[in-house]
Amino acid sequence: MSDPWQECLDFCVEVTKQAGQVIRDALQKDITIMEKSSPVDLVTETDQRVEQLIISSIREQYPSHSFIGEESVSAGAPSVLTDDPTWIIDPIDGTTNFVHRFPFVAVSIGFTVKKVIEFGIVYSCVEDKMYTARKGKGAFCNGLPIKVSGQQDIKKSLVLTETNFKADAEQFNTMLANVRSVLTIPVHGVRSPGSAAVNMCLVACGSADAYYHMGIHCWDMAGGAAVLTEAGGVIMDISGGPFDLMSRRLIVASSRAIAERLVKEIKPIRGTGTAATNMCMVACGAVEAFFEIGIHCWDVAAGVVIVQEAGGVVLDVNGGPFDLMSRRMLCANHADIANRVIKEIESFPSKRDDVQ
Amino acid sequence: MSDPWQECLDFCVEVTKQAGQVIRDALQKDITIMEKSSPVDLVTETDQRVEQLIISSIREQYPSHSFIGEESVSAGAPSVLTDDPTWIIDPIDGTTNFVHRFPFVAVSIGFTVKKVIEFGIVYSCVEDKMYTARKGKGAFCNGLPIKVSGQQDIKKSLVLTETNFKADAEQFNTMLANVRSVLTIPVHGVRSPGSAAVNMCLVACGSADAYYHMGIHCWDMAGGAAVLTEAGGVIMDISGGPFDLMSRRLIVASSRAIAERLVKEIKPIRGTGTAATNMCMVACGAVEAFFEIGIHCWDVAAGVVIVQEAGGVVLDVNGGPFDLMSRRMLCANHADIANRVIKEIESFPSKRDDVQ
Repeated sequence: MSDPWQECLDFCVEVTKQAGQVIRDALQKDITIMEKSSPVDLVTETDQRVEQLIISSIREQYPSHSFIGEESVSAGAPSVLTDDPTWIIDPIDGTTNFVHRFPFVAVSIGFTVKKVIEFGIVYSCVEDKMYTARKGKGAFCNGLPIKVSGQQDIKKSLVLTETNFKADAEQFNTMLANVRSVLTIPVHGVRSPGSAAVNMCLVACGSADAYYHMGIHCWDMAGGAAVLTEAGGVIMDISGGPFDLMSRRLIVASSRAIAERLVKEIKPIRGTGTAATNMCMVACGAVEAFFEIGIHCWDVAAGVVIVQEAGGVVLDVNGGPFDLMSRRMLCANHADIANRVIKEIESFPSKRDDVQ
Repeated sequence: MSDPWQECLDFCVEVTKQAGQVIRDALQKDITIMEKSSPVDLVTETDQRVEQLIISSIREQYPSHSFIGEESVSAGAPSVLTDDPTWIIDPIDGTTNFVHRFPFVAVSIGFTVKKVIEFGIVYSCVEDKMYTARKGKGAFCNGLPIKVSGQQDIKKSLVLTETNFKADAEQFNTMLANVRSVLTIPVHGVRSPGSAAVNMCLVACGSADAYYHMGIHCWDMAGGAAVLTEAGGVIMDISGGPFDLMSRRLIVASSRAIAERLVKEIKPIRGTGTAATNMCMVACGAVEAFFEIGIHCWDVAAGVVIVQEAGGVVLDVNGGPFDLMSRRMLCANHADIANRVIKEIESFPSKRDDVQ
């Protein structure tokens, strides 16, 4: 057996097909069922079910392998990339699309060995498009080879990115300023389909010429990165440096020329500083709210009492009482603001991705 | 024959299927052919071919009917809605998507009698989704009834809109400020699929909860308006007043509550004033460029000499020499700026839609 990872890829395709069927079945449920529980609850249920299906199937076949799965990380598992053969899984990429039945919803799986992506799969299951790529062997959609557009001229390009509300005003401003900069080049157009994995595949098959995004996770990128690269695309960090799977940001493009032009146009989105500083900004009224998932007790212990004594509220991000050891914290100037953020918190996750 | 317009609808579905096949065939052309001619040329060719196919087929069957077609208007035909039975045709809605093979490309046809939309068809031909609606008889996708999500809460909604570069800074700022306002509500998300007709159908079938847009034309809206309305959706002007097919702007939503909230959040995009004023702003350096299609000789005659004597350039929007009687004019502070605008002019048409 000359290529053990090809065998893993073939196995993964079968598992992914099953996962896609579960998602399509969930989308077919009567609308009254969709409305009975909150949209977020429903998604979490299907998300978890699909991730469990994928991980249990793969673990049975490959018991020594490691996993990073979006839902497992949400439930407290570490998001740490090691040298082990590792399956990086997003059971439903495009969660908001899924809730709304907007037609870009994908299963995304990337597989790394010694931190190098060996293969990737993105199954856009409403479109029934199965994108696959094995390192060095090309990229395919439903078995047919795909390649990027090869477009070199950014002014003739269609650019993908996503916009979402950010509680941090500086981050929000930077995100919108980036859209303005790209539109002003000008490009042919900007599109927002709502799934990172699908966006990467749209560039891979030549339906768009570039995609950039900040704030996404390794499980949003791992599968699509393999497909994009094998389709002849260019992938890099927002800074123009090498792509880092754990960096939570990327530029992909049909050519180096377009990627490098985007590097010039796009400013990195940065936090305002440390968790401690951010909490003090809430305490002194400079911002209304701040939350973070993945922080440690030493990041927030002082800030908690400062916010509370300044008249603010400190809670768990799920709305429950704050737990110093839970690695999750939300603080706000008022309970109403806190509750509003809690409701929206699913839409801008901020868990950390780490490398070990 | 109790409903003559139903017969027209049935006939139109068959014509639209043929048109969709022509578009799909064009999309299948070898990539080298795509690159040989400029993308815009190719699109114009297919656009025109599809519109001619549609109009000639319908005219043969219904010789007394009137037509408003995007390509015919571009070629100089009037865009005037009368009381006649009128077919309003966009042969390819989502032109930029078509060039890039981005998967939302539609044939859109609306049919009015006494200025009331009697039926509409939107054929999203890559997805192979045929949306149809006859006034008072419901909306369908591939023959199955569809309805809007019914969502009442804008904070749980997925909102569609499109962003594009606008040479007018005030318009550009307003467009981006509107995106910011909507994101800040906050909504679940904002998506930009790139086809007005498809966007309306996505709201009609419950995959999104609202869509707003300014600057589009009657042929972008007529087919989708019928589908959306018959699916139970709400359609209104950006101002909150009644929808006007010739107004070049609209809000559609799954409920009145969401539409009315968007009215509050969205500022109208207005020109800075008359063509004469705009040309003087170029002449005195306040803006770099201004163009308009559909203006008359009396709108621009004075401004032309003012711009020229101030050191600016005045051209036809196609880059040729300015013709006072051509109803098209582009002026700029410098030939380089003018050329840049000319290249992009396809992406923000500004022909007038009129009612008679």
